[in-house]
Amino acid sequence: MSKVAFVGGGSFGTALAVLLSKKGEECTIWCHSQSSVDEINNKRENERYLKGIKIPDSITAYSDLKEAVEGADVIVLSVPSKAIREVSKKVAPLLKGHEIIVTVAKGIEKQTLKRMSEIIEDEIKNHPIVVLSGPSHAEEVARDIPTTVTAASKDMEAARKIQKLFSNNSFRVYTNSDLIGVEIGGAFKNIIALAAGISDGIGYGDNTKAALMTRGMSEIIRVGTKLSGRPDTFYGLTGMGDLIVTCTSMHSRNRRAGILIGSGMTAEEAVKEIGMVVEGIEAVKAFYELKCQTNVDMPITAALYEVLFSGSNPKDKVTELMARSHKDEGLFI
Amino acid sequence: MSKVAFVGGGSFGTALAVLLSKKGEECTIWCHSQSSVDEINNKRENERYLKGIKIPDSITAYSDLKEAVEGADVIVLSVPSKAIREVSKKVAPLLKGHEIIVTVAKGIEKQTLKRMSEIIEDEIKNHPIVVLSGPSHAEEVARDIPTTVTAASKDMEAARKIQKLFSNNSFRVYTNSDLIGVEIGGAFKNIIALAAGISDGIGYGDNTKAALMTRGMSEIIRVGTKLSGRPDTFYGLTGMGDLIVTCTSMHSRNRRAGILIGSGMTAEEAVKEIGMVVEGIEAVKAFYELKCQTNVDMPITAALYEVLFSGSNPKDKVTELMARSHKDEGLFI
Repeated sequence: MSKVAFVGGGSFGTALAVLLSKKGEECTIWCHSQSSVDEINNKRENERYLKGIKIPDSITAYSDLKEAVEGADVIVLSVPSKAIREVSKKVAPLLKGHEIIVTVAKGIEKQTLKRMSEIIEDEIKNHPIVVLSGPSHAEEVARDIPTTVTAASKDMEAARKIQKLFSNNSFRVYTNSDLIGVEIGGAFKNIIALAAGISDGIGYGDNTKAALMTRGMSEIIRVGTKLSGRPDTFYGLTGMGDLIVTCTSMHSRNRRAGILIGSGMTAEEAVKEIGMVVEGIEAVKAFYELKCQTNVDMPITAALYEVLFSGSNPKDKVTELMARSHKDEGLFI
Repeated sequence: MSKVAFVGGGSFGTALAVLLSKKGEECTIWCHSQSSVDEINNKRENERYLKGIKIPDSITAYSDLKEAVEGADVIVLSVPSKAIREVSKKVAPLLKGHEIIVTVAKGIEKQTLKRMSEIIEDEIKNHPIVVLSGPSHAEEVARDIPTTVTAASKDMEAARKIQKLFSNNSFRVYTNSDLIGVEIGGAFKNIIALAAGISDGIGYGDNTKAALMTRGMSEIIRVGTKLSGRPDTFYGLTGMGDLIVTCTSMHSRNRRAGILIGSGMTAEEAVKEIGMVVEGIEAVKAFYELKCQTNVDMPITAALYEVLFSGSNPKDKVTELMARSHKDEGLFI
């Protein structure tokens, strides 16, 4: 039996804690707000993020980080991407030395263009870091719907430990040593989900969305391989798989934000309406910057940047994408 | 201006004829039944296959094949895959020599395991053959919803002619010289759409479907590259793109058939309920045979074969797929 501490009581962290506690593992959840702590410990629910799911009695929530991570073998950082650096800084002095750090956050730091595992490495030295990623809506994980994910790490022994820890009959964990590919794919897919949502919001169809997703994959691969990710990874669960789930499900906040923008809202209004972090909007800025630095052709990213931050009309941008000169297919054209 | 003859008045053929006639091209449609011919010529609608779409007056339907193809520069074979050989045989003696043959049928001939273009080549000698494929529900093409497809051929000059012929502001055509990859991807995706539908029919979620689609892509690539298709093609519009649209849209007959089977119907009952050809069910047999001949690992195809033709329980099969031994990700594992 392991002790697993979840730093962040959002939907995915809570769902994973529920999954582990059903397997008999001891779990704690650190929450930012005392009201969330009380809700989990007393009402046995996380109404805002995971409504309707019973939280087992064996899970204890804490507002004190030290208490939450005390004695843990595995620490899962389950906060939004922009909180990862701050949280890593706070976790670092509390560690004993043997803990595996797992992150489920997806994104690229705007200021440094670093991936989540790089930020954690900056702040937490000499601990194995494992990224858990894949097509896995929290709502479905918590209800034992068959789900597959990838545990990626430079330290394959740690990845295999995490694989074993989380696997059960409805949650299948693959390992992957391509940390870069897994993290770039996971962050980028939120951008394409925004674009897919915008297309839906305009009233375009399944054909249009499939085109955006497929050509979006080409952008992921072009920029991802430039940053040393392996092409195969982008076609796997954390690339294509997560892209599919994010672009087609109403569970996805990024897609829902896109739908609102396609229907005429500004990015700001859409975020306010969703009421939770919309990772894709932040990610567009980071990937637009990466596009400029690496000189990679990324027409969908560029169009999205103009729609979100320069007030371009989404419909005009789709028409522009469709009306480019005749081309041969192929990823690098 | 070209004259284009459509051999087969199904939904996709009719939608393409509508698209071309709006561009000012002269189109004819050959239909098997006199009642379809009368409906198109008099009521200006194809109610069974493309309800609600007005068919322009410039399109003429014929029940006589010779009249339909007379003077045509391009002949589009738009019949179900199992009628392609018979129709090609009938078209062959009517040709003058300069015509480009286009096919939109997707499948593998059960008896010979040949692709559509190979069957046409058997029956129609010395004509360029172009396969038009991609994420393109007919209902959306006919309504000018932005759509992308691929024109694939061994004869790139012919492919570029077809690209130019069909392209407009909402229908973007790419070219591709990998005919094998395009045809294998197009045929195989119907299998995965069946599997995705079954998962939906059981009541599983977006996570499960995304997993099936992603791991299904691995099967397409494994068998497709073994048959000399190029990996890139499977990640393009005719592979991944068409897979997405077929697995997520209610327009898809294959997915709808899967949903019925997942809810408890037999394959036969599902086909009866759909009332049109369900290409995926035929394709499962062909790809199961290919799997046996090539010795490629295709667990989803095998599971589907057992569900459709040996009465295995779909839920048990998903559980089996999920509970296999722990694995590293990667396409060839």
